[in-house]
Amino acid sequence: VSEAVFAIDIGGTQLRAAIIGRDGQIIAKQASRTHAQGGREAILVQITDLCRGLRAAHHSQTIIACGIACPGPLDSGTGVVLNAPNFRDFTDVPLRDEIAKRLSLPTRLENDGIAAAIGEWKHGAGLGSDHLVFLTISTGIGGGVIADGRVLRGRRGMAAHIGHLITDPASGLRCPCGAIGCFEALACGPALERRLRANKPLCAAIGKPEPDARDLFRMARAGDPEAVALVDQEADYLALGITSALHAYSPERVLIGGGVGSNLPQMLDRMRAGIARTAMPHFRDVPVMPAALGDNAGLVGAAALAFDPTI
Amino acid sequence: VSEAVFAIDIGGTQLRAAIIGRDGQIIAKQASRTHAQGGREAILVQITDLCRGLRAAHHSQTIIACGIACPGPLDSGTGVVLNAPNFRDFTDVPLRDEIAKRLSLPTRLENDGIAAAIGEWKHGAGLGSDHLVFLTISTGIGGGVIADGRVLRGRRGMAAHIGHLITDPASGLRCPCGAIGCFEALACGPALERRLRANKPLCAAIGKPEPDARDLFRMARAGDPEAVALVDQEADYLALGITSALHAYSPERVLIGGGVGSNLPQMLDRMRAGIARTAMPHFRDVPVMPAALGDNAGLVGAAALAFDPTI
Repeated sequence: VSEAVFAIDIGGTQLRAAIIGRDGQIIAKQASRTHAQGGREAILVQITDLCRGLRAAHHSQTIIACGIACPGPLDSGTGVVLNAPNFRDFTDVPLRDEIAKRLSLPTRLENDGIAAAIGEWKHGAGLGSDHLVFLTISTGIGGGVIADGRVLRGRRGMAAHIGHLITDPASGLRCPCGAIGCFEALACGPALERRLRANKPLCAAIGKPEPDARDLFRMARAGDPEAVALVDQEADYLALGITSALHAYSPERVLIGGGVGSNLPQMLDRMRAGIARTAMPHFRDVPVMPAALGDNAGLVGAAALAFDPTI
Repeated sequence: VSEAVFAIDIGGTQLRAAIIGRDGQIIAKQASRTHAQGGREAILVQITDLCRGLRAAHHSQTIIACGIACPGPLDSGTGVVLNAPNFRDFTDVPLRDEIAKRLSLPTRLENDGIAAAIGEWKHGAGLGSDHLVFLTISTGIGGGVIADGRVLRGRRGMAAHIGHLITDPASGLRCPCGAIGCFEALACGPALERRLRANKPLCAAIGKPEPDARDLFRMARAGDPEAVALVDQEADYLALGITSALHAYSPERVLIGGGVGSNLPQMLDRMRAGIARTAMPHFRDVPVMPAALGDNAGLVGAAALAFDPTI
């Protein structure tokens, strides 16, 4: 019998649970569609059901704790989700203590961006680094920061909302958070897809009325000049936000994950040129590189938190 | 005989040295005009001369260490000034070790914004707080961050360059760092004064061809509508940068120092309204308040570093 933990990653579409070992290896994983509109009790039941299902199928593991990654803002100190805008009736939810009680396990709760940063730091592309910025470029832009060998948390654990650095207010682009010109409003997947869908000739060339980011990156790889221009613009926006993150945190590495972020190799040359234009000279050589754990970063980070109370 | 330290603050115009006690009290202080164009040796000699003058006049103190605050970027880990753009021949200067050797004292070197943040944290308006953002709004915009009860340093100690968060690239305003639309480029004293001097009727009302920020704030207090509009615009720019800092670091307090910053009370209502428009709800109630130590924050912080190697 070896020791393991439950890790939960509450996403806007998928709710995932896993049993994970001390080495960060995923022993078993289950997912179901998040009951986003079911209210808080529905999500609590969903989490405990997934965990009980995993436990029943994996008797050989002794589960010693639970870690949860959840969209913020949340207070990781008190374990309370302050507000999860994509979930109905999910304001001021004492998620950590509710799950701890229902599973009878010591439980930690962390912002999903920070949890993913921890996953990459402990078991992914950030291994061995004391200064790290992780960004997930997806439906939103989430982030987490390791600085001076520790997780940057701040008041109520709400630091590293890098997606909400004010980056281009003149763009007029409204962020889901309500502000105008946040990094997320410029560069998240839906913003990119809006620009794509506004380009009718490109949509026609793709042959879909509602093409997505994947279609765009494919067309750009095939050399379509309109697609290349949109990908270049995305790279320019990412360069602005990454420059701010370099100056804010001075990381040794910037790790990029998420659906849009998975196309990093296609954007990297253009992004590096943008960073060289806007970052101060001593920040320009910081590597920007793909995250290693993909969709599992949040789960692996939640597990690391569950194993190690000092993180 | 009581223990004290030397504190040095190397400014673009004034080079200041002080003897400071463990309680942060300034026992003696001397200043001279910075030999900015004299090259590195001139500045090294100037520092040691000021310190020797102070020591000669204050025999009752045992000087046990030295702390230096200097404009960055600098590497506080190795004690090397990477580049101080306002000083001639001041690139890759091992300032810490040079001063340690010449004074025969253990010496620390810190970025002036971070040193001032430490001063306010240990002996000023940040006392008792674990999460703090300090901003000096002056010729430039400098900053320092305390997070989770520690100084945020990052790779080479270069974190917290808050003045160089990309804040409004569409403004076309070029920052001294070379980038366009940095927070500093929008909101530093010289940017404000350029806007003031471009307003000919306001300059005529002030009665000077080259009025400065002090004249502007005075005219605004007197109710001049053109002056009020410029002060409001400054408050709006500050709100953008402070919003980004709230989201980046999640401080408990934001402390504002510097020449322009000393007019905070006159800008605070407008700034708070701007922050309420752009910050996420759970960040809006963070107090923005005047720093307490004025020009001495950097000296007091440098002294705290000299006394306590764990900071």
